[in-house]
Amino acid sequence: MGLDRDQIVEHFKTLQDTICSSLERLDQRGRFHEDSWSMETGGGGRTRLIEGQHIEKGGVNFSAVQGPISQRLSQILGKVGEQFFATGVSIVLHPTNPWVPIIHMNVRFFEVDDDTWWFGGGIDLTPHYVNTAEAREFHRALQVVCNRVDVGYYKRFSEDADQYFFLKHREERRGIGGIFFDRLSTGYEGKSKEALFDFVMDVGNSFIPLYSTLFHANYLRAFDAKEKEWQLYRRGRYVEFNLVWDRGTRFGLETGGRTESILMSLPSVASWRYDFTPIGGSLEAQTQSYLKQKVDWLSFTN
Amino acid sequence: MGLDRDQIVEHFKTLQDTICSSLERLDQRGRFHEDSWSMETGGGGRTRLIEGQHIEKGGVNFSAVQGPISQRLSQILGKVGEQFFATGVSIVLHPTNPWVPIIHMNVRFFEVDDDTWWFGGGIDLTPHYVNTAEAREFHRALQVVCNRVDVGYYKRFSEDADQYFFLKHREERRGIGGIFFDRLSTGYEGKSKEALFDFVMDVGNSFIPLYSTLFHANYLRAFDAKEKEWQLYRRGRYVEFNLVWDRGTRFGLETGGRTESILMSLPSVASWRYDFTPIGGSLEAQTQSYLKQKVDWLSFTN
Repeated sequence: MGLDRDQIVEHFKTLQDTICSSLERLDQRGRFHEDSWSMETGGGGRTRLIEGQHIEKGGVNFSAVQGPISQRLSQILGKVGEQFFATGVSIVLHPTNPWVPIIHMNVRFFEVDDDTWWFGGGIDLTPHYVNTAEAREFHRALQVVCNRVDVGYYKRFSEDADQYFFLKHREERRGIGGIFFDRLSTGYEGKSKEALFDFVMDVGNSFIPLYSTLFHANYLRAFDAKEKEWQLYRRGRYVEFNLVWDRGTRFGLETGGRTESILMSLPSVASWRYDFTPIGGSLEAQTQSYLKQKVDWLSFTN
Repeated sequence: MGLDRDQIVEHFKTLQDTICSSLERLDQRGRFHEDSWSMETGGGGRTRLIEGQHIEKGGVNFSAVQGPISQRLSQILGKVGEQFFATGVSIVLHPTNPWVPIIHMNVRFFEVDDDTWWFGGGIDLTPHYVNTAEAREFHRALQVVCNRVDVGYYKRFSEDADQYFFLKHREERRGIGGIFFDRLSTGYEGKSKEALFDFVMDVGNSFIPLYSTLFHANYLRAFDAKEKEWQLYRRGRYVEFNLVWDRGTRFGLETGGRTESILMSLPSVASWRYDFTPIGGSLEAQTQSYLKQKVDWLSFTN
């Protein structure tokens, strides 16, 4: 095969570098702090954290690790093998301003021994306040990215995101969704490894344009204590999703991943209020109601 | 059998009442707010929340529920049956003052059909700052409670607490432990149901004396912003434990329990800081180091 591990690793590292420098420019003040780490079984990562003026807390992680396939991993993969190799870039940004949404992006490549591989990843948005026009534009942009490789991808992957980013115990979506895909391989509609990797890199490269649009439209908007409080409350839901339902987080914590890198997705501060219901008709109530329904954002009209 | 469900339920309700009125006296200002709820399959509960001046957030729950045994429940119980019945009182208090520890207590009774039953429960302490003398006194008091029914109980149940209240992904204890027991039945060393219930009620009734000692010794101590920050940081660990590892919480969230009652154990505000290490020699570092070791608090000497 033309495309090998090393090339994918290099592209992912460059993606991390590009995204980090763009985010530093967006923030204007904050600088990423990097921790390099290595795994006993091989490989390691570059964990990067920014605590800036506009990005309250943001993590941009790169890792490329390998090791023997444990029984637990084999169960999860539904695949027996000797060695795994995994590389990826993973991002969560918690903004200072409640009008700016939380964003998450991940691209990854997984290989079992030398014969089986797949790509995974996605981007999704968690606004503290749902802005319907922004939600529609976000989904439209993702559809454009998907359409370049397959006109069926957006529908499938946005539905997968809807299913995945769901807090079952709240019967509530994490946010307005996005796209989510896994196990993308050549078996999957006969696309070449190169074509699939192009798609994955397109997803990765769409992150900064998508986020900077949302960022610039909102980061200077005034907010008051009530809106900040609501942001902290919504962050509580983000914590619940990641610790209770997110497969990557749970798998990492259960199998001895690097805890501080895994939990970088958690906000600096979050809050819980017993049985809280926003006042009817408020923006908070409106957001809550959007999160309770399945919305087709692509064709949403006010 | 002399002791039936209804009697246990009545005792647990009274325990909830007694504890709530004692806590209102401790707080001096806050009053419990009660929500009564019912389950479709039968039974219900009384969820009580206090947001006071000294108890920042405290939940004291009573419930008595029944229903058919799902496949998932049967798996967890390791027991096939038609109907379950479960009743219990469950408490978590998050104090305002970082010098006052977080405390958790639970007593419960579980029955499968009419032939199999057991008790469970425990008390454990999560100080933001470990006070070694208080930790020793806390364990001594629990030993006294245990010894009344069986001189082997304290050792066994305190070891079970040490094992249970452990954050595997941090290799860190939640706090200084306490006692934890489950599946306590007549098969267990031939004690009568009445004797076991006496023990369970002793545990429940020891809650207020234990907590008020710790409360009075600390609730007026001055604290600064740094200490409050550390408290929020330690609460982040409490959130991690409850959402990632606590069996009761996870079982409840996965099987459609009342989310707001289950998650009342979460603090009003919690924080996360990437890769934070307290300054060497500080009280924070001391606490962290106690949580990293297994300490025999009963015989602890400074």
